[in-house]
Amino acid sequence: MSGCPYFQKKFVSSSKQHLKEDENDDSQTGVNKASKGGIMYGDYLQLDKIVTSQVLQSELKGNKIHDEHLFIVTHQAYELWFKQVLWELDSVREIFISGHVRDERNMLKVNTRIHRIVMIFRLLLDQFAVLETMTALDFYDFREYLSPASGFQSLQFRLLENKIGVPHNQRVPYNRRHYRDNFRDRESELLLHSEQEPTLLQLVEQWLERTPGLEEDGFHFWGKLESSIFEGFRKEKEKIEKKTASEMKEEMMAELSKQRDIFLSLFDEKRHDHLVSTGQRKLSYKALQGALMIYFYREEPRFQVPFQLLTSLMDIDTLMTKWRYNHVCMVHRMIGSKDGTGGSSGYQYLRSTVSDRYKVFVDLFNLATFLVPREWVPKLDPSEHRFLYMAECCDSSYCSSSSDDSD
Amino acid sequence: MSGCPYFQKKFVSSSKQHLKEDENDDSQTGVNKASKGGIMYGDYLQLDKIVTSQVLQSELKGNKIHDEHLFIVTHQAYELWFKQVLWELDSVREIFISGHVRDERNMLKVNTRIHRIVMIFRLLLDQFAVLETMTALDFYDFREYLSPASGFQSLQFRLLENKIGVPHNQRVPYNRRHYRDNFRDRESELLLHSEQEPTLLQLVEQWLERTPGLEEDGFHFWGKLESSIFEGFRKEKEKIEKKTASEMKEEMMAELSKQRDIFLSLFDEKRHDHLVSTGQRKLSYKALQGALMIYFYREEPRFQVPFQLLTSLMDIDTLMTKWRYNHVCMVHRMIGSKDGTGGSSGYQYLRSTVSDRYKVFVDLFNLATFLVPREWVPKLDPSEHRFLYMAECCDSSYCSSSSDDSD
Amino acid sequence: MSGCPYFQKKFVSSSKQHLKEDENDDSQTGVNKASKGGIMYGDYLQLDKIVTSQVLQSELKGNKIHDEHLFIVTHQAYELWFKQVLWELDSVREIFISGHVRDERNMLKVNTRIHRIVMIFRLLLDQFAVLETMTALDFYDFREYLSPASGFQSLQFRLLENKIGVPHNQRVPYNRRHYRDNFRDRESELLLHSEQEPTLLQLVEQWLERTPGLEEDGFHFWGKLESSIFEGFRKEKEKIEKKTASEMKEEMMAELSKQRDIFLSLFDEKRHDHLVSTGQRKLSYKALQGALMIYFYREEPRFQVPFQLLTSLMDIDTLMTKWRYNHVCMVHRMIGSKDGTGGSSGYQYLRSTVSDRYKVFVDLFNLATFLVPREWVPKLDPSEHRFLYMAECCDSSYCSSSSDDSD
Amino acid sequence: MSGCPYFQKKFVSSSKQHLKEDENDDSQTGVNKASKGGIMYGDYLQLDKIVTSQVLQSELKGNKIHDEHLFIVTHQAYELWFKQVLWELDSVREIFISGHVRDERNMLKVNTRIHRIVMIFRLLLDQFAVLETMTALDFYDFREYLSPASGFQSLQFRLLENKIGVPHNQRVPYNRRHYRDNFRDRESELLLHSEQEPTLLQLVEQWLERTPGLEEDGFHFWGKLESSIFEGFRKEKEKIEKKTASEMKEEMMAELSKQRDIFLSLFDEKRHDHLVSTGQRKLSYKALQGALMIYFYREEPRFQVPFQLLTSLMDIDTLMTKWRYNHVCMVHRMIGSKDGTGGSSGYQYLRSTVSDRYKVFVDLFNLATFLVPREWVPKLDPSEHRFLYMAECCDSSYCSSSSDDSD
Repeated sequence: MSGCPYFQKKFVSSSKQHLKEDENDDSQTGVNKASKGGIMYGDYLQLDKIVTSQVLQSELKGNKIHDEHLFIVTHQAYELWFKQVLWELDSVREIFISGHVRDERNMLKVNTRIHRIVMIFRLLLDQFAVLETMTALDFYDFREYLSPASGFQSLQFRLLENKIGVPHNQRVPYNRRHYRDNFRDRESELLLHSEQEPTLLQLVEQWLERTPGLEEDGFHFWGKLESSIFEGFRKEKEKIEKKTASEMKEEMMAELSKQRDIFLSLFDEKRHDHLVSTGQRKLSYKALQGALMIYFYREEPRFQVPFQLLTSLMDIDTLMTKWRYNHVCMVHRMIGSKDGTGGSSGYQYLRSTVSDRYKVFVDLFNLATFLVPREWVPKLDPSEHRFLYMAECCDSSYCSSSSDDSD
Repeated sequence: MSGCPYFQKKFVSSSKQHLKEDENDDSQTGVNKASKGGIMYGDYLQLDKIVTSQVLQSELKGNKIHDEHLFIVTHQAYELWFKQVLWELDSVREIFISGHVRDERNMLKVNTRIHRIVMIFRLLLDQFAVLETMTALDFYDFREYLSPASGFQSLQFRLLENKIGVPHNQRVPYNRRHYRDNFRDRESELLLHSEQEPTLLQLVEQWLERTPGLEEDGFHFWGKLESSIFEGFRKEKEKIEKKTASEMKEEMMAELSKQRDIFLSLFDEKRHDHLVSTGQRKLSYKALQGALMIYFYREEPRFQVPFQLLTSLMDIDTLMTKWRYNHVCMVHRMIGSKDGTGGSSGYQYLRSTVSDRYKVFVDLFNLATFLVPREWVPKLDPSEHRFLYMAECCDSSYCSSSSDDSD
Repeated sequence: MSGCPYFQKKFVSSSKQHLKEDENDDSQTGVNKASKGGIMYGDYLQLDKIVTSQVLQSELKGNKIHDEHLFIVTHQAYELWFKQVLWELDSVREIFISGHVRDERNMLKVNTRIHRIVMIFRLLLDQFAVLETMTALDFYDFREYLSPASGFQSLQFRLLENKIGVPHNQRVPYNRRHYRDNFRDRESELLLHSEQEPTLLQLVEQWLERTPGLEEDGFHFWGKLESSIFEGFRKEKEKIEKKTASEMKEEMMAELSKQRDIFLSLFDEKRHDHLVSTGQRKLSYKALQGALMIYFYREEPRFQVPFQLLTSLMDIDTLMTKWRYNHVCMVHRMIGSKDGTGGSSGYQYLRSTVSDRYKVFVDLFNLATFLVPREWVPKLDPSEHRFLYMAECCDSSYCSSSSDDSD
Repeated sequence: MSGCPYFQKKFVSSSKQHLKEDENDDSQTGVNKASKGGIMYGDYLQLDKIVTSQVLQSELKGNKIHDEHLFIVTHQAYELWFKQVLWELDSVREIFISGHVRDERNMLKVNTRIHRIVMIFRLLLDQFAVLETMTALDFYDFREYLSPASGFQSLQFRLLENKIGVPHNQRVPYNRRHYRDNFRDRESELLLHSEQEPTLLQLVEQWLERTPGLEEDGFHFWGKLESSIFEGFRKEKEKIEKKTASEMKEEMMAELSKQRDIFLSLFDEKRHDHLVSTGQRKLSYKALQGALMIYFYREEPRFQVPFQLLTSLMDIDTLMTKWRYNHVCMVHRMIGSKDGTGGSSGYQYLRSTVSDRYKVFVDLFNLATFLVPREWVPKLDPSEHRFLYMAECCDSSYCSSSSDDSD
């Protein structure tokens, strides 16, 4: 950045660095004065690679088209940011996998990094406005040179989807081939590996299953909730029954019954497992309970940060879906929809990916169906249920090891 | 991009390409099937360079700090986009320098590309929100490793400023050194060269000087405008003089006189030259006239696109200033302002760059001071002054040479 | 705005205003000093109405819910901006209806105002981020009080859709009723009226039909284009035929044939009319030709601004679709998708509106299917076809009447 | 919103509502069918007031100018959002004033609402892009009619500044008058009242002073920090002293001494009080300590949410400053800067408000000057210092009273 004084020497340096600096003392002789023996901005950012990687195919083919440069830079910027998203995602997954998440100090990191992914995706949405300054006609001038390169071949985007938890067996095939077969061997292996690692979805699921308050021999949230809800329905029914007969009364009764059925389904574990098997739900039954517990008691100190996390996870899902939809819109503009003329199905393929099928945390959205009035939520006695304002911390030895941010 | 079908083979290819493809037929044997002998997405974008250029200094020094990755990627994204801005800027400058701008067909390109720079700067402003997810404390953990790298050393940003027209002799010194002395020899030469090339400001100035309608032996806009304005003031004065004496009348008379003085200064070429010599104005007197002519007759077919261009140039100025200001705000957050404690002046240096001194097209803003009522604007008779709806085109030979978008 | 000095007294006022001011001189006595006899900021903006219109239903019902205020303000802000969009839209339609568009001076206004609509819709997309700070649980606390109010009842949004050209006979029914039946009588009449007025789509269609260059006795673009394209295909075929037999040769031949069929359909007026009858195309055959002419010759001075207009029209379509999609996403978050539990179909209804069926200028997108190499585009001789750089102006009497911006 | 099914009837209603509904049963007769006896969208939002409040002064004066409508709507949208910001701000201040903030359950509300203000200001920044579609020339056509209305007269913006904590005695005078004298009597009283109420700054200050860990008879953060830092400096000095004499060694020693002085100033309460008296610091000495404590121990469960709050407060400050700067930029564009011609000082006045003087939480930024290496931060033993992972909750009676979100 221009004139950025970020990089100023700090007044004091860790002993480790001192050591390294001393070792390097000799090698500094002869270095350009501007660098005073440290690192220069351009070297630090490896700009010799970053800003020299724009090779226009149209130019190679002897027909240089100005706008191809924009096309390249935009896609490179997408890939740079995908790299960053993967960086954050992997670090969060590592905190979960290693069990560090049990030390609730690490929730700040988890939350901050997941939120950062949200902010990056917001930027990526805005980025479409830049590429849209290129018209279909500008694009036509060079698109022939790009064949068969395809954004479908973005390894990082596929990794990102896999690591978040887009289920590979539900992927829409592309060019009638398994999605992995569109990649080179080494890349295909990375993809396979990412399918086999714990996904963010699975890790969040395990974490939700451990939500304090779910213990059947403790607060037993699920049991209390079920009782409370159906007690509520019973009272509502009584109230309605006391009204004088009317069309409205019957409507209310029918509505009540319908709503009761919805909640019956919530407490029906078999039904849940069926919905999981068809892909309509993705979280385990226990995890679903944990999520609802966090929803209802979100203001308790223990759950404030977890609730933010669930909200950010929905943000990511929503933004990825919007990103796909923006992509569809741009492709429509760039190559048309073939207009019933029997052309390729690129546009149609993309449209099919804008579906709830690709929403990883769809259950967190759908829980909105199961909200109830505050007075139906089982009461918690803070003097008894102290877990709500006491964080799970750790022994000091463990903490010290985690505190050096080596994640 | 995911599943992007942009890159589909076009049904017909230019003869040039066919040739090349034929030559390469043999070399295609053995290539991975996915590529069908063409180019792959990752190779096209040189992702092996782009997404492997993130080397954390903190990790090299044995103390890996997670957030340094974000810091690197953000700055690389800035540099990628600066590259794109330079690409657009150079192409526009080339159209002006080569004289192609005289063929008004090229105005669409000029306008589109300048507008694209506007859109890129909008994105760059949004991009701050991502870096701001890093706190001062996160930054503190690795900033010592970066010394003495400094965003001030961004070659591309300095080039960009020079090529647009930030006057180098008005630059705030940095670290008490000439700005070029903070760069390596080769870079310093590039900067010197960019100072010596025609800037966008100078090119626009020359173009404005040729605005049709300025000819003294033709429509003679400036002369007509001067007469019309002072005739207007005279009539206003008469109107006020007819009012009965009152405090309000005196106020109106004083205000009128003050306003008249402002316009006297507009028609005072010596005063203009003085303001240019002090850096308060930057365009030549003739160019200023052209800009005002375009302002007043912006709805005439001939001036619609030029008017858009002037507007976009102001957009760029404003956005670059806002970018600087956003930068200041972030630096304040990251390293404080030293709080009167005598620390470094990074923050103060940056604040000093957020000034009208760095606004290149400041005259286009300041012309708002010289607007007049529509009835004071000299009338144009379209049957006489046909230049207003006839574009300057070119002979067919010239056109054919320019039409192949080889820019 | 804070300290905004916009409203400063201008040094000179039109005679009309002077008259009015004089008339009002007496009435100014006793007015608060701050206003000096003119108008105050709050009165000007009618803030006594604007900022007092937030009545919380939850508060009226004795259970004040904090977040309802956000819900109200957000929707009011949407409606304010819809008002502005209608203002711009009506003014543009009026320029077309009155025939003023034939004076090409008015194209700047048309373009600026359509572009302003684009900018407003961009803002409206951003605005979702504010409402999304409300969670499903916050919303649940007051949503019962709002029944049966529904955003479907936004009169302005329906008017806006109608005036742009969303075909009412293709509207998805809501609550199994005709969309107009969800409104009050007076509102329903306004809607009916808006269906019967010329839509932006129809007006643009008429304008496109008049595109210079389409005349059969003039440049005859369509005839020339057809010849040129099929001549191109013929030559391509010859080239392929010369290759030695191979699988690749056959593939190329098949592809060529397929592409040729696509273009055959373009020149098949009956097929066009059929697609119009099914709603897949919306522009007349002649208008489609005009649009393609503008696409291909967009750099000609005469077509630069028209080309920008077509681009902005696609922007509006895209943004409205994105707006609908963002809306869908938020509704999913707020009330769930019923998760296969048989609940209401609000979410499903909304999803159905995110379809190309609601894209008004879908033909402008789909024309991307019919792009051809630059060398296939019929050549224009500027010395012969002067219409490309001469604007259609007007006689001076007409112009003077149009120049007083009374639109 | 279009087709928004938010407002669906909930299946069950609170007893309170039932009561009210029953009472109203009779009054529902005769209501339009569309409303089914409830409330309609347009009535709910009072659209009869909102979308009818656009009265163009230019039209009243007989010279309707199209763009004045945009000017009005934009400012009304600003005021709508200011209303919302005040709504959030007042609710947060009330939580602090009432002492409810001591129950840490309420921190979620505080945080969410402060974050919402951040999101609203982000939108308000974006909103400038819409108004910027109006050019200086469009504005000139109607600005004379607005005199002397001025954005300076925005009551809500002044209230907002006062309630956040912009010190009234540091306000730049406007038109050489005390800022309150530009308002009507009733408004002036509201402003005076807002100056006398506890500001967000003061409330946050009190809250920071109570930061657990500051107790001198407890963890005694400040004392421990002082010891630790100067111990650190002592060790650094020893390290440097061991080096062989060289220019670099002297530089390091000088730098160390300089840095040590900076920290001496941090622990000098008198110096702090002096900086407060000059307006360079705004928080009490104790509050400053609390803020630094939260910074250093931000990952502890107890401090995660407070740290987010401090971050959001800086966001608000930054965004308000950016808003002011954007405003300056637009005013420059609309009316020029008078270009040394002696015109009014509106632009200059506005520029003067873009200063750190108007930053309310400036201390939170400047604390970045006082960061230290992690190893210098006093260690906490979680088994001893349990306050770090135990929230301050409340007795059950208190909680039940606070839980009904009546804020």
